[in-house]
Formats: sequence, structure tokens, C-alpha cells
Amino acid sequence: MTEHDTLAFLLSLAMLLTSARFLGELARRAGLPLVVGELSAGIVLGPTVLGRIAPVAQAWLFGTSASTPAKMLDGYTTVAVVLLLVVAGVEVNLGIVRKRGKSAFYTSILGILMPLGGGVLLGFLLPDSDLVHPERRVLFAIFIGVALSISALPVIAKTLLDLGIFKTDIGLLVMAAAMINDLLGWLAFSVLLAPMQGGRTDFGAVARTVAITIAFVAACLIVGRPVFDRVLRQIEKNHETAPRRVLSLVVLLALFGASLTQAIGIHAVFGGFIVGIMVGDSQHLKEHNRATVHEFVTSIFAPVFFASLGLHADFASAFDLRLCTLVFLVATAAKVVGGTLGSRLGGFRWRQSLSIGFGLNARGAMEIILALLAMEAGLIKVQLFVALVVMALATSIFSGPMMKWLLRGDEDEEAIAALLRRGAWVPDLRAQTASEAIEELANALTEQLGEKKAMALQAVLEREATASTGLGDQVAVPHASIEGLQKPLMALGVSRLGVDFNSVDGRPANVIFLLLMPPRQYEEEVRILAGIARAVIAEASREKLLRAATLEEALVILGAEPSAARPPRSRRASLADI
Amino acid sequence: MTEHDTLAFLLSLAMLLTSARFLGELARRAGLPLVVGELSAGIVLGPTVLGRIAPVAQAWLFGTSASTPAKMLDGYTTVAVVLLLVVAGVEVNLGIVRKRGKSAFYTSILGILMPLGGGVLLGFLLPDSDLVHPERRVLFAIFIGVALSISALPVIAKTLLDLGIFKTDIGLLVMAAAMINDLLGWLAFSVLLAPMQGGRTDFGAVARTVAITIAFVAACLIVGRPVFDRVLRQIEKNHETAPRRVLSLVVLLALFGASLTQAIGIHAVFGGFIVGIMVGDSQHLKEHNRATVHEFVTSIFAPVFFASLGLHADFASAFDLRLCTLVFLVATAAKVVGGTLGSRLGGFRWRQSLSIGFGLNARGAMEIILALLAMEAGLIKVQLFVALVVMALATSIFSGPMMKWLLRGDEDEEAIAALLRRGAWVPDLRAQTASEAIEELANALTEQLGEKKAMALQAVLEREATASTGLGDQVAVPHASIEGLQKPLMALGVSRLGVDFNSVDGRPANVIFLLLMPPRQYEEEVRILAGIARAVIAEASREKLLRAATLEEALVILGAEPSAARPPRSRRASLADI
Repeated sequence: MTEHDTLAFLLSLAMLLTSARFLGELARRAGLPLVVGELSAGIVLGPTVLGRIAPVAQAWLFGTSASTPAKMLDGYTTVAVVLLLVVAGVEVNLGIVRKRGKSAFYTSILGILMPLGGGVLLGFLLPDSDLVHPERRVLFAIFIGVALSISALPVIAKTLLDLGIFKTDIGLLVMAAAMINDLLGWLAFSVLLAPMQGGRTDFGAVARTVAITIAFVAACLIVGRPVFDRVLRQIEKNHETAPRRVLSLVVLLALFGASLTQAIGIHAVFGGFIVGIMVGDSQHLKEHNRATVHEFVTSIFAPVFFASLGLHADFASAFDLRLCTLVFLVATAAKVVGGTLGSRLGGFRWRQSLSIGFGLNARGAMEIILALLAMEAGLIKVQLFVALVVMALATSIFSGPMMKWLLRGDEDEEAIAALLRRGAWVPDLRAQTASEAIEELANALTEQLGEKKAMALQAVLEREATASTGLGDQVAVPHASIEGLQKPLMALGVSRLGVDFNSVDGRPANVIFLLLMPPRQYEEEVRILAGIARAVIAEASREKLLRAATLEEALVILGAEPSAARPPRSRRASLADI
Repeated sequence: MTEHDTLAFLLSLAMLLTSARFLGELARRAGLPLVVGELSAGIVLGPTVLGRIAPVAQAWLFGTSASTPAKMLDGYTTVAVVLLLVVAGVEVNLGIVRKRGKSAFYTSILGILMPLGGGVLLGFLLPDSDLVHPERRVLFAIFIGVALSISALPVIAKTLLDLGIFKTDIGLLVMAAAMINDLLGWLAFSVLLAPMQGGRTDFGAVARTVAITIAFVAACLIVGRPVFDRVLRQIEKNHETAPRRVLSLVVLLALFGASLTQAIGIHAVFGGFIVGIMVGDSQHLKEHNRATVHEFVTSIFAPVFFASLGLHADFASAFDLRLCTLVFLVATAAKVVGGTLGSRLGGFRWRQSLSIGFGLNARGAMEIILALLAMEAGLIKVQLFVALVVMALATSIFSGPMMKWLLRGDEDEEAIAALLRRGAWVPDLRAQTASEAIEELANALTEQLGEKKAMALQAVLEREATASTGLGDQVAVPHASIEGLQKPLMALGVSRLGVDFNSVDGRPANVIFLLLMPPRQYEEEVRILAGIARAVIAEASREKLLRAATLEEALVILGAEPSAARPPRSRRASLADI
């Protein structure tokens, strides 16, 4: 390692990070996913733009892939992509998958099978010139099928958050379906990778890889999960050392998982993903620590990785409009139809189902990683790589607006006021825990609930156990559907000292809405939750609520900010956005 | 990059991180600095142990320095060491240096000059066989002088925190002296590096390097500092995006600073250090963001870097007892004598001065980085490298115990109760900001302070502006020395909603002690602050204090935990410990 190598490495890393973050922020400002800007940064610094304008400077900075600075950069991006998949895995909530079992199963199965079919068909119909090895067309077609069936959990989570429906039934179903989808997609891809790299298909080797992969997943999720959970509980006991220990533990488990999957011939990123699921599922992972990992990965690792993708290909000369259009159309049509039919079967109405279909259509970063791995493995040509990247970006960009348009409705600004007048107002909660707060608020609704009170209480507590309803920014919205309830019921409680609802920002909740819904009123639920979010978005409103003495005062405060059109800022929003 | 390269890289990284963290925690448990364990991990995995036991496995994992996995690891450790210096730079508080001007100046100048003299002498006395280039003995002697004069800011900060005197006058003086010390030491080393690598001394080139280096430091600290501060204020306005933007900004500035200093022929780490100072000095750097950078760097970057040091040398065959003893004795004697004389001149009593001398003697991680750079530059032999590492570890290990022993005293458990009875108790502060809280508490002492009230208020507000007194964990201790005060005065205020004292943990302070001290009563101040820390260490005590209605109730609560012998957990403690 010479002085020049160190300099070229540091400077290339600095340039990639700077331009990726800058263009990422620009993309964000234009309403596009961050990854659009980050990837563009690499296209600008890579052979596509800088290589044409100033080939000498480009070569000095990034060298050939065999140069020492390029290898040092490889070290950094390898760690980056493993950690990126860890972060994606952490978003997977196995509890949600279990709870939403039936409808999530239909939605995800049809959301996988349709694109898989479409992709395989596409793989068989493409002319030989699009293939690297026309003689291995079957494997190629299966790969295209798998590639089109994958979803982008982080992009989907971000879209749901932006719409303020992350914690509604529709939101949880879309998330659950996308999780099943991703797990199966990555598993299939990882298994495909080995025979695709070898010259010919060795069914014995494939079977062995499948067996080891399934054993690894099972070991992590069945044996590793409870062990990790217990270790974490032990670590979290010491508040002083916990953050650093948790960080180290997560990263080193990810590195070992990645090494293991790399060693058995499937890709390192899959190990990172499974470790992420294992980690994210632990009850004892504090939101603060999760957020720290997330912030670091998404601010200094992910941008460099996505920008470095642009260095791998000349996006101008490899752009094939026919291929891009074809891939985009097949992918979108198959995914939207599959997702829509699946959720319709799962019990949603048509318009809601269609919005779920579009939600699942976002491919985002995960598709791009998959495409890169396939190109590096010599499985697809650079033209198809570019087409998959374009498809991933395009589907991510328009999934949010489509969902929003389909779920639009006349939102009733008066809804919360009316609900509270009919419901209850507890100006000074004495509860110290989330369960106590829920019980105290349910007790305030004793009159309205009658004999349904015990059942309602249990339903809300169970819902809370599945996934916390702490929205961050001092607000929590415990809620549940109650069999037999005719119209929505709400109680609002204010706690001076705050109650811990395990919010992403670690702050206790001071403003707590208990919301009880009649079964299956998804649209109404979305509307009410979005209304709550709007009403308490301003810190000033929440401060005033803490001081309000009468219901009328509280109602004036809640109605004071009717124009703010987005949910309260949640750190999760920025985290999910890779 | 082959599949094997990726695997070897991931696995070597995983092994280094795992063993470094594990041995680091063991060291911590044994009361030793983390770096002792982290470095041992590398010795175990490097040529010293694993290379002897299982040379094939060792070579497969870590290869030669020219292998692709080794280069990928180089990329990671290069980023690690730059970020490590950023974190060290962030600890430097220019305000403290300015405020403690005179005594810090004496202490640091003598704390530099004595070891510099001792080191130069040592450099001239060592036999030719210890030198790489005996014909360049002058440069070598100057290097040894600089190497012995450096301090380890993070280790010193950690020691002061462990003793509970970080925010006392002695603590701030030691920190200020160490900061001046480090800045000058690194500057000198960076300037020395260039001619030492060239075959002979070119005074024109040295002069040019010095000029550019000073220009760079001036540009960062005079021009860059206010610009960065303004940019940061802008970024912090948006709470949602701030953490990720701040992280990216700090890292990319560090990478550019490192590239720049690397390009002008001084080492990359110096650029990281200066950028760290610039960043840490900003009023608008939120403690939460500082803590996130710190946690990440110290949990996944620093351990790998220190462990990787062990791969560079065979510590068994290069261990030279004569050299180790000599370096250790000269370094310790010169530093302790220099630091002690300096602080005596600065106005401290002999025993306090001696404790400051031992505090400054800790060399820690910074010395080790310097030694590695010198060895890589071909300036010192591996035997001297090992001797410097041993000296750095030994001085770090015994600096804390010596300070503690010298500052021991009969701590008066009754002090706080007596102070509060003489002082004031404000059971429900109405203040919403730190300044308001200080004013409210000062007003409560109107009777005791008389005409000195205005002066006292101003002194405390000025002290608070220098460095926040928020200890974290809901406690703040605004304090100052007041000219003409005969004995300590204290007011205790409790705030239900909390007041933001810019604590490291981001939580508002609910329990606020205003402490006014007669001038120069350092030992008494240390005793009272440590007593406060012990009294409110338990979360339960603080919760009860929030509910206490009378002074007597409060006193019972404050006296309830007299045995806990450490200050409240502060995240800063774990951060400073590199």
C-alpha cells in the first residue's frame, strides 16, 4: 500500500459519499427515493459521464478493478452491502407475518407466483442475443422470474409511513406479504447462484446447497433467535455498555453469517439478511440501538454502495429501450395483478386490494443488489442489468403516488372531535406502563363499551404485543378491531411524566389515543389515524395538550393544525428509506 | 475479486472484530483500558501466536500484505483510523483551552518540553543498532522526543470520568493541557514525517510542508469552523433528516481532510483530527449525533484497527526488555515531572499537581497510532515499535489508579445535606431553558448571596456556555467559582417537565443542582460533585425526588444511596474509552 493508494482510496471514497448524499438529498427533495439520487452519483462518477469527459481523472481516482485503491474500496462496499441487508432484515417482523397469516399468505403467494410466471415467460421469449449463455436458458428464465418477484421492504415501509398507514391493517398486511416475498425470493436466488456460476447444472450440488441453506435459516431462526434474545436481554441490563455491545454483536454476527453463506456457495448478503431478521425479531433490541445501526448504515455505507454500482457499467451504451420497457411492463403487470388478486382473496375490497398490489410493486434497492450479483456472476448481460435497475427505480418512484391516489377519500377534519365527544378524555393519566395506560383508557370507556370492555382491552393489549403503536414524538395510538362494535370509539389520555411505548425515538408517550374500530373498517381506520397524526404533528400542540384542563380546550388544540398534510416526523421514516 | 477473496476478507474481519471486542471487554472487566484487550486480539491472531501455532490457517485468513483480502482489510482500517482521530478531535474543546489559558499553558508546555527533552536525549544515547538509519540520528531523536510528549485525550477523559471529576477545575485543566499537547504533538509529527521518508533532509521541503500544514489548520479552525457551525445549525432545524445528514457531513469532511493532508505529504490521520476539532467545537452539534458517531467508531471501527496492529509485527521476537524499560522510564519520569511542575506554576497545590502529572502521563491509543505510522514510514525498527506500544499501554493502565490515590480524601457523606439546609430547595421549577433554571435557582439564594447575586449568576451562565454541565440521566450541575464567597452554596431544583441542558443522552434534566464555590477550592469541589453524582445515581432516587414535597423528604432520598461509589452512568464514559 503506497502513499498514492491511500490517497486515491480516501479521495474516491470521499467523492462517492459526497455526490451520493448530495444527489440523494436532491432526489428526496424532488419526491423521489434516495436510491435514485445515490445511483445517479455513481453514473456521474463512473464510465458513463466522468469517464467520457475526463477519462484520465476517472482512471486515476477509481483505477481498474485490479488496482489497490479499487480493492480497498471493494472492502468497504462489501461491508456496506452486508450491513444494508442486515438493516433490511431487521425490518422483517415475524410476529406480523404470523398474525396476518391467511391474507398475507394469499397476497404474497400470488404476488410471487404471477411475477415468477411472467419472468420465466420473458426469459423464454427473449432472443438468444440477450443471453450470456443461450444454452442455459432454463436457469436464466428462472432467474428472471425470481428477479421480478422480489419486493423492496424498506421502500414499501417508507411509502406506508409517508401515507401515515404503516400501523393500519392494510399497512401491516402489505409489510407481511413483502416479508414472506423477500425471504422466499432471496432464498431462491441464493440457491440459483451456485449452479449458474458453474458450467452446467449439477442437481446433486443444487440439492446440497438447498439443504445447507435451509439448515442455516432454520438454525438462525429457531435456535439462534431465542439465544440471541437471551444474550441481548443480558447486555441491555447494563445501560452504559449496552449500545456498543449491541452494535458490535450485530455487526459481528452479520459478518459471520455472511462468511458462512459465502462459504457454502450462496451469496454473503443472504447471511446478512437472515442475521438481520434474527436480530430484529428480538424483544430486547432497544429502538435506540436499532436506530443507531440504521442511521449509520444509511448515511455512510448505503450511499457509497449504491454509488459504486454506477462504476460497474456504462449506463449510456448499455441502455436498451426495448429491454427496459419489456422488463418494466412484465414486472409491473404481473406484480400488481398478483398482489391485487391475493389481497382480494384475503378479504379486502377491490380498491384497497389494488392499492396493496401497487404497494408491493416497489422493487427498490433489493432488486438492484440482486441484479448486480447476477451480472457479477456472469449470469446476465449488462443491458439486462441496466433494464432491471431502471425497472427497480421506476416501480419505486410510482408505487407511493398510486397507493395514495387509490386510498384517497374525503378526510373528515371533524372526525377526531366527534369521536372524542362521544368517547372519553383523561387529562392526567396515572399509568406508568403501556399496559396500564391502555387499561386506564379502556376503563374511561366503560359506559360506552359495556360488556365488551374486557374483550376490547384484551384485543388492544394483544395488538400492542404484536407491534408497538408508539409513533414517536410523544404520541402513541394503541388500537384494535373489536368484534360487534358498530362505530369507532376513542379515548384520549395525557400523561405528564410520559409512558414508555417503545417508540423509535426512545421518548415516552405523553399523548395517548386509544382507538377501537369495528371489524374490517380499514379505510375509516386509515382516515382516523392520519387525522390523529396531523392533529399532533406540531410539538407546540402537544405541549399545549399537556396543559389543557378541559375537553373543549383539548379539542381546540387538536383542531388547530388541520392543514399539515403529513404524519408526525418519525425517525423510522428516514431509516426505512434506503 | 474472487469468491475466495470475499470470503477471506469477511472472515478475517469477523475474527478480528470478535476477538478484539471479547478481549476488550475482558480487559475492561479487569480494570484495564479497552485498547489493551483489542491490541492483544491482534497479537493472538497475528504472527506472534496464531502464526506460530497454525501458520497455514493464519496465512489463509490474513494472507500477505499484497493479497486482495489484505488490501480490502486495509481499506476498512484506513477508514477506521481516520474516524478514530475524528472522534479524538471532537473531544478537544477549544473553549476550555481558551478559558483555562494560563495554567493550561504552563502545564502543557512543561508537559511537552520535559518529555521532548527526555526523548531527544534518549534518541542520542541509543546505540546505532537500535536505529534504521544511524546517519539520520537527529531526525530520529526529534521523533522520539515528539513520541514521548504526546498524550491520549480519550484515555485521560475516561480516567477523569471514572473519578467523577471530569467537570471540575482539575479535570478541565488536565483536559485543556492534553488538548494543546496533542495538537502540537501531531503537528510536529506530521511535519517530521515527510523529511523522514525522503532520503535526506530538504529544508525547503520541510518549510513548505510546515507552511501548508499551518495554513490547513488555520483554514479549518478560522474559516471552516464558523461555516460548519452555520451549516450545522441549518441541518439541525429539520429533526427528521438531521442525524443522517450530520453523520454524512462529518464523515465526508473527515475523508476530504484526510485526503488533503495525505496529498501534502503529512499523514491522513492528521486531517481527520483537525476536522474532528472543527466539528466538535460547533455549538450546534447535538450530543445525540456526537454519541452516534462515537458509538459506531468505538464499537466496530476502532477494535478492528487496534487488532489489525497486531498483524504487523511479531511481538514475541521483537520484544526487547532493555528498550521497553528505557522508553517507559524516560517517558514517565519526564511527563510526570513536567506536568507536575507546570500545574504547580499554574497555581495548584503539590498533591493536586502530582495527580495532574500522572493524568497527563496516559499515552493510550494515540501513541500506538503514531508508532505504527513511524514504523510504516521506515523510521523506527519493530523493536522500538513494540517498546512504544508497551509504554503506551503501561502508562494508560496506571494513570487512573495513581490519580485516584493522590486525590483520595475523607469524603463527607453529610456534605450535600448540610449544603442544602444552608442553601435552597425549589420543588417545582418553572424554567423552560437552562438559563432560566440557573436564574430561578440563583434567585432562591438571594438571601445568602446578597449583592454577589448578579455576579454569581453571570459566572454560572458563562461557565455553562463554556461546556454544558448536563451530566445525563436527568441531572445537571451548573456551577462556578465566585470571588469573595467564603463557603460553598447550593440550591437544588426539581423540574417535572425537564429542562434541556444539552446532556449526552439527550434527555432533559429534571434534577438540577446549582453549586457556587469559593475560588480555588478544587478538592472540595471534586468532593461535592462526586457526592452529588453518588446521591442521584439510581433512577429510583431521581423518580422519588420528582415526587418529594418537602426538603426533609428530599434529604432522605439524597442520603439513601451513600454506598454507590461511581458517578451516574454517562454515555460519554464509554465513548471516551478508546
